[in-house]
Amino acid sequence: MDDKPYYRHHVFFCLNQREGERPCCAARGAQAAQEHAKKRIKEMNLSGQGKVRINKAGCLDRCEEGPVIVVYPEGIWYTYVDKDDIDEIIDSHLVNGKPVERLKI
Amino acid sequence: MDDKPYYRHHVFFCLNQREGERPCCAARGAQAAQEHAKKRIKEMNLSGQGKVRINKAGCLDRCEEGPVIVVYPEGIWYTYVDKDDIDEIIDSHLVNGKPVERLKI
Repeated sequence: MDDKPYYRHHVFFCLNQREGERPCCAARGAQAAQEHAKKRIKEMNLSGQGKVRINKAGCLDRCEEGPVIVVYPEGIWYTYVDKDDIDEIIDSHLVNGKPVERLKI
Repeated sequence: MDDKPYYRHHVFFCLNQREGERPCCAARGAQAAQEHAKKRIKEMNLSGQGKVRINKAGCLDRCEEGPVIVVYPEGIWYTYVDKDDIDEIIDSHLVNGKPVERLKI
């Protein structure tokens, strides 16, 4: 990694909408979760260079484990069920640097 | 970072389409570049777990420096002009692990 990362935590939400039999994150509340995270990080004044970026992403190709997010540069992957899970990831990992073991995949 | 990253190189192309005065990656050939990279990585049999993932992303918020991509977990950011630049990033960085200094931002 280069000296200091541009974002301390760069979070990518898979928002992929997939047709057919393979599951997809979009059908499991991914968009609402991403919007919730982005809004909350902004309200906490944590967004921006040197801090946190909440990003939309296309298919991260872990569909069967979804909905999924990945946090870089740590490379930690999570699944989640609802906004409470997202809040726990924000409060524990993004704010306090302590990954949420129970949500890791 | 967790032990072994799920993807050795996870590449995010900003494909954001923006209206108004701020520049955007979509207006600078980002979609064609992403498709080119994805196709080439697949042809080289480099795509998949433990290898390379070429991803679409929403706005990475470095619009004025665009078009941009970021490669994780290294956290290396690039800009590019054409497919030759993309090929150089693929051949040097993604295949041989040697970042392309002249394209870094």
